[in-house]
Amino acid sequence: MAAWRRADSASIDRAIGGKSRRTPTREASVSRMRIADIRERSLAISRHGDPSLPSGGLTTSIVALVTDVVRSGARVIGYGFASIGRYAQGGLIRERFAPRLLAMSDLADASGNSLDPFCAARAMLAGEKPGGHGERCVAIGTLDMALWDAAAKIAGLPLYRFLAARLGRKVAEPPATLPVYAGGGYYYPRDDVARLADEIARLRDGGYTRVKIKIGSAPLKEDLRRIEAAQRRLDAPGCLAVDAMNAYGPEASRAAAEALAPLGLWWFEDVCDPLDFATLADTALRYEGPIAAGEALFSLAEAKLLDRHGGLRRDRDILLFDPVHCYGLPGYLQILEYLEGAGWPRRAFWPHGGHLFTLHVATALGLGGAEVNPLCFQPLAGLGDGETPRNGRATLPEAPGIGFETKAEAFALFRSLLE
Amino acid sequence: MAAWRRADSASIDRAIGGKSRRTPTREASVSRMRIADIRERSLAISRHGDPSLPSGGLTTSIVALVTDVVRSGARVIGYGFASIGRYAQGGLIRERFAPRLLAMSDLADASGNSLDPFCAARAMLAGEKPGGHGERCVAIGTLDMALWDAAAKIAGLPLYRFLAARLGRKVAEPPATLPVYAGGGYYYPRDDVARLADEIARLRDGGYTRVKIKIGSAPLKEDLRRIEAAQRRLDAPGCLAVDAMNAYGPEASRAAAEALAPLGLWWFEDVCDPLDFATLADTALRYEGPIAAGEALFSLAEAKLLDRHGGLRRDRDILLFDPVHCYGLPGYLQILEYLEGAGWPRRAFWPHGGHLFTLHVATALGLGGAEVNPLCFQPLAGLGDGETPRNGRATLPEAPGIGFETKAEAFALFRSLLE
Repeated sequence: MAAWRRADSASIDRAIGGKSRRTPTREASVSRMRIADIRERSLAISRHGDPSLPSGGLTTSIVALVTDVVRSGARVIGYGFASIGRYAQGGLIRERFAPRLLAMSDLADASGNSLDPFCAARAMLAGEKPGGHGERCVAIGTLDMALWDAAAKIAGLPLYRFLAARLGRKVAEPPATLPVYAGGGYYYPRDDVARLADEIARLRDGGYTRVKIKIGSAPLKEDLRRIEAAQRRLDAPGCLAVDAMNAYGPEASRAAAEALAPLGLWWFEDVCDPLDFATLADTALRYEGPIAAGEALFSLAEAKLLDRHGGLRRDRDILLFDPVHCYGLPGYLQILEYLEGAGWPRRAFWPHGGHLFTLHVATALGLGGAEVNPLCFQPLAGLGDGETPRNGRATLPEAPGIGFETKAEAFALFRSLLE
Repeated sequence: MAAWRRADSASIDRAIGGKSRRTPTREASVSRMRIADIRERSLAISRHGDPSLPSGGLTTSIVALVTDVVRSGARVIGYGFASIGRYAQGGLIRERFAPRLLAMSDLADASGNSLDPFCAARAMLAGEKPGGHGERCVAIGTLDMALWDAAAKIAGLPLYRFLAARLGRKVAEPPATLPVYAGGGYYYPRDDVARLADEIARLRDGGYTRVKIKIGSAPLKEDLRRIEAAQRRLDAPGCLAVDAMNAYGPEASRAAAEALAPLGLWWFEDVCDPLDFATLADTALRYEGPIAAGEALFSLAEAKLLDRHGGLRRDRDILLFDPVHCYGLPGYLQILEYLEGAGWPRRAFWPHGGHLFTLHVATALGLGGAEVNPLCFQPLAGLGDGETPRNGRATLPEAPGIGFETKAEAFALFRSLLE
């Protein structure tokens, strides 16, 4: 039986609460492709540009997938990482998901021209049970990022062009650009407002016209001072978004909505617990400006609940699902296609993450734009070395794959996995 | 600062979507207690009594927590495992949760007489973000089981008595008994119906008057044959429950509800995807008999959604939350107390798991009863060696702690962690 039919699709659909994308049947095995080796490591990652500041012990996983496909005389290697904001997933990668990938005898797509990450996703999900959408979704997404990197490299295309072709979508001639904003604005342990203002000025000078900062971990009054300081450093109104990091309960949400309403924010993000749809819907009734949600939801099943019970408004609200955290791109596409079918415009999607992978995804899929983390979560987040946005848009690397090779420090980290 | 105040309770409440139980302040440090060492191992576990049958690659984690508390001349050691049905969590235990426990300089409770598992749960949850209730909840629950075992042993009490005292609840004089049913009835790869019938007869002969079997993975017609064969082996009507293992979509749920309605089942469990509350509510409108749900929900946040949107009926339906899978007993108590406050009777709770820990929990909390897995998931599940239920009730071990010491094979496994 061909490898890409081997995974039990029905049980996979059940595990992640939706339909997985079927791979067209290949007539004959043109050339088999396998993952020959998987390397991974957990590492500390800082939410601050200055990594000496305390950062809550955050970690991420980096992986290298060594394929058995040779291009330009060397085996093609895909790189990926666990995006940012949740934890490293080395245990689940080593114990459950890497072995399932390594056991696949053929991951070639229907054309035989590259790897098929959809087939790989089905293999990783085989035997997983419905529900429990945490951690494993990030582990799978980490490997999925590296699979897309490898697949695009095998095809000799930057990921956004490879992905668009794979999904039958058109993208403009290169160079490709995408609307972006700078994520950052975490609390500083000392001189918070002054240092925040410096950070925003630095981001603005680096070409970012829109910025997102954190609120919700200080009394509202202090957060209002942060917002005022940040807004003063930006050139135009309506360019600052705030992220409450799911901190507010029902009453605090009401107080915050009332206090933030007159400020003309770009959006108000992660108001309350990600599954507290009643409070979110209540906020949407009280807060006229755009609300953003979905960063801490990881599956189609949860996306459906958000849409059904969260009170969000298709004409203005923003959806932040992180393709890496949602069982990788195959899981993200399920969410996108379901919500688009339910009336959401693609411009509402601004994926969380702040790194090159989400830039490719947002470009190929025609989404609203993407976060960039230029200062924090280094060296993995941010644009290619020396790249800065112009007129609010970032230029994507045209190197084959995701283009981590255009980020010297990140690339050195990934390469160190192979030593 | 005292160790039990060190964890940031507000951020922990946010992580699991509710209020964590506060520990009374201790006046002075009577005697400090620490976890000195944590051992863990992943192992294969079979859903069949005959472990040579294929079992989907299921695994679980076993752990041993070595305390620095000496009783009868030896350090007290708590044992726990990851319950059954999800996967082993060795990676998360080693990478995130064991280090946080080992870093606590004092885990003594307010009286100074034993460990405080609530304090330990707060330590394990420190830094965890809201949402993403999968895997980590099981890792924490695994360690939590061992913490309760150790705490009850330090106090010299069987866990059900220790827990009841800790929560200010009364339990009857020993020996304690609890209503139980036998879980099992998985599909056999060959001679399914005949082997199922044999299994049910064996369970009945072993003293189980009520039994639960699996459906949902075969055509409905075949499942009806399984149900008929199982019912014929039981002594009384209304003693068979069926578990569809979240297999049905909206249409299949309707068809199943219609076909099962006349059969007089004890309950109809895990109808559809655990987060597909619309389908569950639709089923509850069509199926008059008891419906059971909650096994694949892992947090208070999800329990609230089930209660709000799942259409369940407080007068008859059954709640299956697994204390090990829901961030351990502290997380389970949040769910129990919230739902009790929302009008659910304690008799509606029949925790999933099928092992001694849930028997203690259900007894101490005055729940409806508990599952026992007498044949499958050995040697960890089931009652103490040689114990059989009488009149539908099982007798709890009176040994200090959970009483894994009364199960020779399980105890040998746990002890092997210390070699």
